[in-house]
Amino acid sequence: MDIIVLQPETSEEDIRHILKKLESKGLKANVSQGTERTIIGVIGDTSKVTEDEEDAIRAMAGVENIVRILKPYKLASRDFKKENTEITVKGIVIGGKKIQVIAGPCAVENRTILTGIAEKVKESGAAFLRGGAYKPRTSPYSFQGLGLEGLKYLAEASEKTGLPVVTEIMDPRDIDGIVEYADIIQIGARNMQNFRLLLEVGSVNKPVLLKRGLSATIKEWLMSAEYIMSRGNHNVMLCERGIRTFETATRNTLDLSAVPLLKQLTHLPVVVDPSHGVGKRDLVAPMAKAAVAAGADALIIEVHTNPEEAFSDGEQSLRPDYFAKLMQELKAVAQAVGREI
Amino acid sequence: MDIIVLQPETSEEDIRHILKKLESKGLKANVSQGTERTIIGVIGDTSKVTEDEEDAIRAMAGVENIVRILKPYKLASRDFKKENTEITVKGIVIGGKKIQVIAGPCAVENRTILTGIAEKVKESGAAFLRGGAYKPRTSPYSFQGLGLEGLKYLAEASEKTGLPVVTEIMDPRDIDGIVEYADIIQIGARNMQNFRLLLEVGSVNKPVLLKRGLSATIKEWLMSAEYIMSRGNHNVMLCERGIRTFETATRNTLDLSAVPLLKQLTHLPVVVDPSHGVGKRDLVAPMAKAAVAAGADALIIEVHTNPEEAFSDGEQSLRPDYFAKLMQELKAVAQAVGREI
Amino acid sequence: MDIIVLQPETSEEDIRHILKKLESKGLKANVSQGTERTIIGVIGDTSKVTEDEEDAIRAMAGVENIVRILKPYKLASRDFKKENTEITVKGIVIGGKKIQVIAGPCAVENRTILTGIAEKVKESGAAFLRGGAYKPRTSPYSFQGLGLEGLKYLAEASEKTGLPVVTEIMDPRDIDGIVEYADIIQIGARNMQNFRLLLEVGSVNKPVLLKRGLSATIKEWLMSAEYIMSRGNHNVMLCERGIRTFETATRNTLDLSAVPLLKQLTHLPVVVDPSHGVGKRDLVAPMAKAAVAAGADALIIEVHTNPEEAFSDGEQSLRPDYFAKLMQELKAVAQAVGREI
Amino acid sequence: MDIIVLQPETSEEDIRHILKKLESKGLKANVSQGTERTIIGVIGDTSKVTEDEEDAIRAMAGVENIVRILKPYKLASRDFKKENTEITVKGIVIGGKKIQVIAGPCAVENRTILTGIAEKVKESGAAFLRGGAYKPRTSPYSFQGLGLEGLKYLAEASEKTGLPVVTEIMDPRDIDGIVEYADIIQIGARNMQNFRLLLEVGSVNKPVLLKRGLSATIKEWLMSAEYIMSRGNHNVMLCERGIRTFETATRNTLDLSAVPLLKQLTHLPVVVDPSHGVGKRDLVAPMAKAAVAAGADALIIEVHTNPEEAFSDGEQSLRPDYFAKLMQELKAVAQAVGREI
Repeated sequence: MDIIVLQPETSEEDIRHILKKLESKGLKANVSQGTERTIIGVIGDTSKVTEDEEDAIRAMAGVENIVRILKPYKLASRDFKKENTEITVKGIVIGGKKIQVIAGPCAVENRTILTGIAEKVKESGAAFLRGGAYKPRTSPYSFQGLGLEGLKYLAEASEKTGLPVVTEIMDPRDIDGIVEYADIIQIGARNMQNFRLLLEVGSVNKPVLLKRGLSATIKEWLMSAEYIMSRGNHNVMLCERGIRTFETATRNTLDLSAVPLLKQLTHLPVVVDPSHGVGKRDLVAPMAKAAVAAGADALIIEVHTNPEEAFSDGEQSLRPDYFAKLMQELKAVAQAVGREI
Repeated sequence: MDIIVLQPETSEEDIRHILKKLESKGLKANVSQGTERTIIGVIGDTSKVTEDEEDAIRAMAGVENIVRILKPYKLASRDFKKENTEITVKGIVIGGKKIQVIAGPCAVENRTILTGIAEKVKESGAAFLRGGAYKPRTSPYSFQGLGLEGLKYLAEASEKTGLPVVTEIMDPRDIDGIVEYADIIQIGARNMQNFRLLLEVGSVNKPVLLKRGLSATIKEWLMSAEYIMSRGNHNVMLCERGIRTFETATRNTLDLSAVPLLKQLTHLPVVVDPSHGVGKRDLVAPMAKAAVAAGADALIIEVHTNPEEAFSDGEQSLRPDYFAKLMQELKAVAQAVGREI
Repeated sequence: MDIIVLQPETSEEDIRHILKKLESKGLKANVSQGTERTIIGVIGDTSKVTEDEEDAIRAMAGVENIVRILKPYKLASRDFKKENTEITVKGIVIGGKKIQVIAGPCAVENRTILTGIAEKVKESGAAFLRGGAYKPRTSPYSFQGLGLEGLKYLAEASEKTGLPVVTEIMDPRDIDGIVEYADIIQIGARNMQNFRLLLEVGSVNKPVLLKRGLSATIKEWLMSAEYIMSRGNHNVMLCERGIRTFETATRNTLDLSAVPLLKQLTHLPVVVDPSHGVGKRDLVAPMAKAAVAAGADALIIEVHTNPEEAFSDGEQSLRPDYFAKLMQELKAVAQAVGREI
Repeated sequence: MDIIVLQPETSEEDIRHILKKLESKGLKANVSQGTERTIIGVIGDTSKVTEDEEDAIRAMAGVENIVRILKPYKLASRDFKKENTEITVKGIVIGGKKIQVIAGPCAVENRTILTGIAEKVKESGAAFLRGGAYKPRTSPYSFQGLGLEGLKYLAEASEKTGLPVVTEIMDPRDIDGIVEYADIIQIGARNMQNFRLLLEVGSVNKPVLLKRGLSATIKEWLMSAEYIMSRGNHNVMLCERGIRTFETATRNTLDLSAVPLLKQLTHLPVVVDPSHGVGKRDLVAPMAKAAVAAGADALIIEVHTNPEEAFSDGEQSLRPDYFAKLMQELKAVAQAVGREI
């Protein structure tokens, strides 16, 4: 049910005009005359009223506002599917009792470094390897990733360590290589509303890790998940990675309240990326623990054997020994909230 | 010149380590010991130090912070090119004394409506026709545009009225059709950092209207212009269309101070979109006037013959008669600030 | 009329409980069973339901959300008073056809400088003198203003030039001095929700210039005006001075769309402060023009004879000759939008 | 050491002018000519250069920018005092190994309800009682608190339970009553930059709980602590309570990364208020756990025996049994991060 709030002193004719419009969409209406405002309650399956039709009604004479009661996403909604979605990748479950850790370098730089890091994070208990072959960079003059070659290095590191691989897609034309070499496809924050890319990954049979846009509301984020799911791919996980605020002391503001909120609104697994969320190495560990305490299903953490030689985001990467220590500490926190790691 | 600020009590060895690193990049350094902090001034062409190398230095022991003095964009910078860039499209100049108005519906709906609107806005003095054939929509269930068919309708309306056409690209795979039928390619706010798309439009010979991202800083926006220009296409215009803030009474917060600021920082023409900036029909006219007073080179305004039947954004579209009146009023404001319209 | 949205599957008993609560407040209810949600339309004078009672209802079992239809402010609302409020200060009208300009230094520094500036801005056509005797400073180590002495200098400068004086109050204990020496009392952005201060200035018989808080919504701002008016002082003017966003290239983001929006929502005069809004001298003039074009009733502009010796905000102060030139340019813009200056 | 960045092509004369100015402040300068920019490194105790003098320099011809290297706060800085500040109130230590919990209703409503809640939270292990006698409310028509009477009820509940009391001050004129009846004085978010109030509580001998402003940066927040400390009261604790962002699904965005960041920047204890931070009862528990995991020294949580009858903020208050359960769960998390509760 949606509600149409009328402007004060709307004419009878304008009201009839609106009611006729609703009728033409197969909807019934319930007019309530208040002391100061008249409202129209719309009855029927308003979920079939598109955003566009709603906009058109909003543009009609006499309409002050439309209040949406129902959520605009369906497949992603907890109302649609009550039980948690568990996504299984090569036998590893994301969204279950065990919290999974995805670790690795920001960018794939070369075969040796990558394999070295992969072995280290595997030792410490990571379940997935991350690494970017295609890198979205603010500057056209920065390293843009090794591309297909990088994907192959990832696949090799995966084979050696047994860790499935998470990597980012930036262009729908790269989908074949990504599907061939990766186990989970990442949609980066800047592409959260690259709708064509969403439709592309919605059409393949690989889980998708969908990062939250820099200034995306929770609702918009779930709508982007809905885009992917609307094409048939229901294996979507949502990754909080910090939002943009006025604060400049941290790279972004990690919005951990999104974690329990998403758990109410959706059945999809929730991942947290404390590395991008704060952008400062010393803050990664406390925020990783906080994410686990808040209810995250998985963490994605940047690890590099030599951060000062990293091609990107060195400032926020953990060294392997520090990562190993963090994994131990996370175990205790996970246990404290009834989870495992 | 960049500045490296050291942590208090950084060891001599760490400092030597940093200096050696700089040397290896062909840079000289100037160490200044202050009473409370030591800083290293870097001398030489630091513009060749990539973002990545900078990150790597930031990750070194002893480094508290790096202060960038130089702007990260070059081709887009007023330092690089002092005189204003004027972009000429079918004989119409954007960025000159005359302020150009781009008008039309949000989405191309059908041939008749589009041509009707085109004729009306032409009559009132608009210089360009806008209309979306590919529509980025928050919901996968909303109208996504007519695609190639829509491009053809635009071309027809253009031929009938003589108005060149501005339309949005969403997918690099659509570039051929867009180049064939459009006169100016629009990059929408959500794609401002869709870097592959930027490179794509940077490789063709058509002017680009680059909208500011919802939460993009001025610097990031200029870096996106730089992406396009780095591929050889220097005909870029920047379009302010409102940023996301905490305020919910307007759709976005139109940042008009971006206009005079951009005029200082860059030689590129500046366009303002008051329709998306505020999202409410009644606020479009005053904000269009304010944009002209602030120094905009062009305006882009949504006009629809029947907003309540529009497929999208009806709420912010002006009716043709109202648009005609606005055009008259804008003339006076333009004149007051030494421009024409 | 307010609307209570119920959670799906709310029990009959919970609904009865809610209806009983409403009845106890003298309100009637209209239950509409939709296909997916049930809503309760509340009928009667809901404006008497306090924020607290609303919160209490929101906390009841079964309630998913409450939608407020009516505005929470009354005296400040355009619904309450249709015609514009004009505030007359020593014969000068704010809120009429003529746009008034308030000019002067950020802080009162000494008698000579102040009088010098006052004479200059008077010459150029300013109608009011601004100057802070009590200065809200971020640092306790910064100049905090001359206090009572500063107020006296303001009164002297006012007497010499005939310009009425606008000055800021920071502490309810300073009210007597302020009322004695000032003509308009300014509430600064940081005190927009200093409710005790609002009540204090609401109890005296002097017009109040209420600056918008750094991250205040339009609604909260109008509620702060309502605080003042609720005590009997209806001479309130609202001053937009920039809001805080993620953008760091300007000091704040001047939200000019607030001007036409406020003109719809309230009958109170609207003032714009481009100096604080942008914080950079070169951007003040274009934004002052834009403010006039957007419909501002008054401008408040920082002017200093020697900005580099100013005790505060030198970076955004205009020199008198530049201010004189701006006043000329503003005349043309005012005329273009049917106003005078 | 501060850095002055010069505009390109600054004249020798302008540079001499700036150097002379620095000299007049007893500072030395180190001019470095880069290939694209010249910078001046300022040597000497720049911490004595006030904000105002800095602004004045920024306003000089040739100055493009000033980069502050040193932090503007001193007493609050970790550089000034390396060891953690522990604040002891009636034998209870805030800032030590044990995490303290402050609990109670938003507002003091009457003697019976308050004492009832106090007894309940005491039973569950809370160390302090919170409750507002003076309430900052957005609307002048909302319940404004019981005032002095409320303070007396707090003192009674404190005597009965042994729990020391935290309550908010809104007006410097209320200081005597607050000092008489309260054990910790709270400065609310809206008053974080009510500088006169800060100076007032800086002059008394009671610990202060300083809430972060709705859109305050970490730096501004620490400057407000500095205000209090500059008057001699060094017992300040900082309370994160959520910042304002574009997200509307939660009341605020709780910025937990502020916790570890503050631990680096300052020696003062850090408190987290998850109740106001999220504003939704169901999210309070996970965020309280996350706050502990992130390193908070104390939590402040709203508890009410009957949220739906609460005079304010009922929506975010926990019932006592739920609070008791949460206290148990927090113990496990605290232990996992090497703390106690």
